[in-house]
This record gives sequence, C-alpha cells and structure tokens, in this order.
Amino acid sequence: MNSLFSKAIRPTLFLDEQKARQNIRFMAEKALRTGVDFRPHFKTHQSHEIGQWFRDEGVKKITVSSLTMAEYFAGYGWKDITLAFPLNLRQLHEIESLATRIKLGILVENEAALKALDSIQSQLGVWIKVDTGLGRTGIPYNQPDRLLDLLSTATKIPNIHIEGILTHAGQTYQSHSKKEIVDIHTESNKRMVRLVDQIHLPELKISIGDTPGCSLVSGFPGIHEIRPGNFVFYDAKQWEMGSCSQDQITVALACPVVANHSARKEVVLYGGAIHFSKESFLHNGGESYGLAVQPSENGWDCFIPDCSIVRLSQEHGILSIRGQSTRDFPVGDLALVVPAHSCLTAHLMRRYVTLDGRILEMMPI
Amino acid sequence: MNSLFSKAIRPTLFLDEQKARQNIRFMAEKALRTGVDFRPHFKTHQSHEIGQWFRDEGVKKITVSSLTMAEYFAGYGWKDITLAFPLNLRQLHEIESLATRIKLGILVENEAALKALDSIQSQLGVWIKVDTGLGRTGIPYNQPDRLLDLLSTATKIPNIHIEGILTHAGQTYQSHSKKEIVDIHTESNKRMVRLVDQIHLPELKISIGDTPGCSLVSGFPGIHEIRPGNFVFYDAKQWEMGSCSQDQITVALACPVVANHSARKEVVLYGGAIHFSKESFLHNGGESYGLAVQPSENGWDCFIPDCSIVRLSQEHGILSIRGQSTRDFPVGDLALVVPAHSCLTAHLMRRYVTLDGRILEMMPI
Repeated sequence: MNSLFSKAIRPTLFLDEQKARQNIRFMAEKALRTGVDFRPHFKTHQSHEIGQWFRDEGVKKITVSSLTMAEYFAGYGWKDITLAFPLNLRQLHEIESLATRIKLGILVENEAALKALDSIQSQLGVWIKVDTGLGRTGIPYNQPDRLLDLLSTATKIPNIHIEGILTHAGQTYQSHSKKEIVDIHTESNKRMVRLVDQIHLPELKISIGDTPGCSLVSGFPGIHEIRPGNFVFYDAKQWEMGSCSQDQITVALACPVVANHSARKEVVLYGGAIHFSKESFLHNGGESYGLAVQPSENGWDCFIPDCSIVRLSQEHGILSIRGQSTRDFPVGDLALVVPAHSCLTAHLMRRYVTLDGRILEMMPI
Repeated sequence: MNSLFSKAIRPTLFLDEQKARQNIRFMAEKALRTGVDFRPHFKTHQSHEIGQWFRDEGVKKITVSSLTMAEYFAGYGWKDITLAFPLNLRQLHEIESLATRIKLGILVENEAALKALDSIQSQLGVWIKVDTGLGRTGIPYNQPDRLLDLLSTATKIPNIHIEGILTHAGQTYQSHSKKEIVDIHTESNKRMVRLVDQIHLPELKISIGDTPGCSLVSGFPGIHEIRPGNFVFYDAKQWEMGSCSQDQITVALACPVVANHSARKEVVLYGGAIHFSKESFLHNGGESYGLAVQPSENGWDCFIPDCSIVRLSQEHGILSIRGQSTRDFPVGDLALVVPAHSCLTAHLMRRYVTLDGRILEMMPI
C-alpha cells in the first residue's frame, strides 16, 4: 500500500493527479480532433488547482453550476464562463456585476427569466436551454415554435447576445451499456441539430455535455461545444455503465475499518452519507454507494470482486464482502472505496490528497 | 411571507429558534420526569450556538459522532462527551489527547479495539456497543457470552472505566406508525435490560437513543440515559413516520424557483443533492426528498398537499405539485421545503438563518 494511505486517520479523498491529467488530455484532444469547443464543467472538482491542470491542456472556457462557483473561478483568472443553470432571478444583480468583469454566459428557458434581462446594464451571453429527453429543464426539442417565441422576445432585449441552444443529455445516465450510451447521446445531438434546422437559424451554436456520451462517441456532427465534467474523476457508476475503464478512475475514499462482522460477511467503515453522499447505483442486483479497490504502492489497482458499500448512515458505511474474508479487512486498517458518484463525494469532502501528499482545497461553501 | 425569506437569493436553511427550543425543552423535561440522564446527540446541528440552547435547558452531557465534533464542542466548554461511533484505532492518539482535557466516553464493540486501549495513558470511559436489531454495529443482544468476553478483557486494561452498554435502535426508522415505533423501541430497551440481567452485572448503565422512540414513549424502564439528536429539528421523514407533529419541525430550505413546467405539473427549484442530500423516504407511493410548506409571516404553516421533491440532481430539485397550480410557484419566487432528513441537509448547508435573521455557522469541516 502507498505509505501515504497509512497517514489517513479519518475518511480521506485521494486523487491520482497523473490519471486525472490523462483524462483531461483525452477529452481536450478529442475536442480538438473533432472540431468542437471544449468548455469542461468545473462543478465536479471545484478546485482552482485542478482548474490549472485544464489550463495546462489549453482550456480557456469553462462551465459552472452556481454563481458562487463562477465568482470563485473568475477570481483565479477564468475569463469565459457559462453558468449552466436556469437563470435564478434572485441573483440577477450579482450576475450583472460579474458580467462586467468576465465574458459570462447564462441559461434561459422561459419568458419570465428572459424578460427580466431587459433591465440589465452589462453584456450577457444567453443560451436557450433545450430538453432533448431528460425531462428536467428546457423547452422541449420538438417544439420549435417555443424556441422561436423565446428568440423573438430576445431580439428586443438590448444587452444580451444569443449564443445558441444548450442541452444536457443526462438521460445517458440511465444506460446499461456503451452502445446504449452512444445511441442516446447521438439521438440527443441529432435532436439539437434538427431543431436549429427547423427554425432556419444556422448561426445558433449548439452546446451539449454529458460525460458518458462525450467519453464514448467518436465525433459530434453539427455540434459546436461540449461541456462534460465528471470525466476528470469518473466513478463506480460511470464504470458500471461503461463510460470508462477501471484505470481511468482517479478518486478513491480511504475509510478506516472500525468493525468486522464475519457472520454477516460485512465490514463497517468510518465513511458514511456525509462522506460518500447517498447517491447509489445498481450493482450485482443491489444498491451500491461505492466499490472497494485494491490499494497498491502507486495508488490502487482493480476493483475487489463482490466488495460493495451496501448501506450508509450518517458516518457509517457497510461494506459487503461476499467474495472476501473479513480477515482481509482487520479493524484499524483502511479500505479504499471508489464512490458511486464522485461529484457528490468531492462536494462533501471539500479537499483532495494527491498521491504525492499535497492537499488541494476546494472552493469555500 | 416573512420578509426575511425575500432576502434568500440562493438555497438558504431557515431555522425556527423558538420551536427548536421548545423541542429541546420537551425532551429535557421528559428525561427529568422519567428519571433518565439526557445526553443529546449534537451531530444533527453541529453548532455551538444551538448547543447553548441545550445548556439553557440544563444539559451538561452530550453525544457526538466524530472526534472533530468532540474537539469542536470541547472548545466551547462541553466537559462530558460520548463519541458514539465504534472506536477508530487510527485516531487513538488524538482521542487520548482529548481525554486529558474532558470526560470522554467511547464505544467499543470488538476485542481488537478493546485491546488497543491497553497502552493509553489518559482515562477513558468505555461503552460496549450492543446491536438490538439494527444490524449495523455492536455485539448481538442475544449473545451474553460475547459481552462477558469483552468485559473480561476490559478488566485487565488499566486506564479505562466500563460505563455500561449502549445501543441505537435505528430500526425504528423503518416504522410506518406511532404504534410500530413505540413497539420496536420498547422491545429494543427490553433486550438491553434483559442482557444486563443475564450477566448479573446491575451496575452496568444502559444508554439508548433514537429520536422516533424517545419522542413517543412515555417512559424508559430500566434505562439510564437517552441520546436522541434529530428531535431538535425533526423533518419530513420523522413526520411521515409519526414521530412529530408538523408544528414541531424547525428547519426548512428556501429554494428559488427557476422553471415552471405546467404540462408536467412540476416546478424546478435551485436546491439539489448538494443542498438536500439524496436521502429520501416513501411518500404517497413515491420517493420524496422533501415536502413543501406554506410560508407565513412568522415562519411557515402546514405542508402544501401533494407538493413533494421527487427528483434531485446536483443543483436542481424537481418539485411535483399535483395538488397545486404552477402559477402558485412563479419563476423568481421561493419555495420553502422541509427536507427528508434534516441532519444531512444541515450538514450540507453548514449554516442556519434564524427567523429573526441571525446566521448560525456550523463547525468547520
């Protein structure tokens, strides 16, 4: 085991910088090769230092999910930021203020939000949010009239510039195979391209962004910009779906073993809902909050078979170890667990420890 | 609506101090009346200022779930703390250090942890964790021999004092009625009393603590100490189970309305998994992450019928409003939502706003 792990006295989120940089390079090169802009989503890592790893690969534009996050990254020199969340009118004043300092893009999906922009004094880029099947936010992809209505309203507003249409094909997260991911993602892209065709406004850009799809497809015909985020870390759910290989996963939570219940074939970890989050995925027929990996001298190797977090309470995690002996997890030792959803785990942990022992703090919340 | 709510420009956790103090008084008086020690669990609120509200009701002993939390509250003058989590051997040195400054109790449930205490230099109180049916940690209630084995090992360890046996009857959280809660809680208590009887060591104290049971039973025969925590806030899940009434709930998350999808009878809120947590409960046949309440001049009134958060992503919450018109939730307005599980929501939010506008920060993480 990496001697660094032995210093983890409480739940500690380890990050493999080398692999994370490879993931960033992989996506940056794919964007370059396929001729799309790369505007990665920084909500996954929320760290200005990891942001620098993206800069090292030539990234200049980013996506964030909150105004606080936009302000944080603007403070670290990011000048072109899309706030990819439906405009929150209650923060309009602060959004205007930020837009005086950087090139800021926002999302709009309804008339009320668009009309509120009439009074703004600074310049804002506006993306119209389109729903290609997720059913969360956006105008439905098959209602071009609603898009035209919004665009018509937009032309009367002085200080905005319509960038184009934007979607998040999060429905790929319901996939169970690579083929299914590629099919859903490709269909979502086609719906966006068709929508622009239908209204005869080819100058509208199209922005898309889901990690499963962007990881697996070989190109993005008709698309101008991709905004994946999770791919910098990946996680157990992405691996289960087929979005990534095991050696592309770059975060693991080290959890002290505090109890060992061999009769139940379960080990109790110090690592619960306030560390992993309560996000789960279906694994071997049951809910899993994370999968244990084998620690190694240089980080970690592959998943340990049948080793899954099956229940969580506030601070406890129950690791089911059907395939192993409980003797492999003695009390006082550490288990290394790849979380179900790395974005939510990182958000809870607020800092990373790299495999060479540096601590990377996340933005304040 | 309370004019304070109008200042909430992002997801904001409001706390009704007056009701929270009533909840504390209710439980403190019940403990006094029934002759048990009251050692409330502070993991729910994690705030030294709310801790003071307990002091105002005469509370001198507390429970915490992590060493960090024990150190935080010790820093605010709490001198008698039980760290109610199975001993994490990797923090033994820090635990010893804290025990030189305060009366510290810890939990042990296996020989390995107990034997590690042999070398400690400071005085530690030790509770033996017993599992009365939850299936998480502790020696099984029906195996008195294992308790005797641990006690026998304990007698050879110089600097510890065996306080007694401790359980958390978290299985009450699976209940669907008040009667079921009371039955499960009462049976758990009886199992603890019987275990002490079987080994003929009446000097062992018995500590128990689940909010549903402690809220509803009228007494605690044979029990020495109760450790409920969630009752200071309660939440939507506790209400659904029958642990509390609507007017005992003291926290609600104010979420800006950012989209309004009348065709789906859904409203999209700025308030997602990083605000509510992904804890859910079964409500009207579906998963719910929180229930909307009607704002009022002095806080909030009762639940709005059929108004439940049915899906969450990182920052979005989907509020299903089958019983209402989407016009009741215009874009730019606020929705007030009682979370499914207040402990996890508070942990994510890190601060409270009281109804008179004070900000209470939680311990640093």
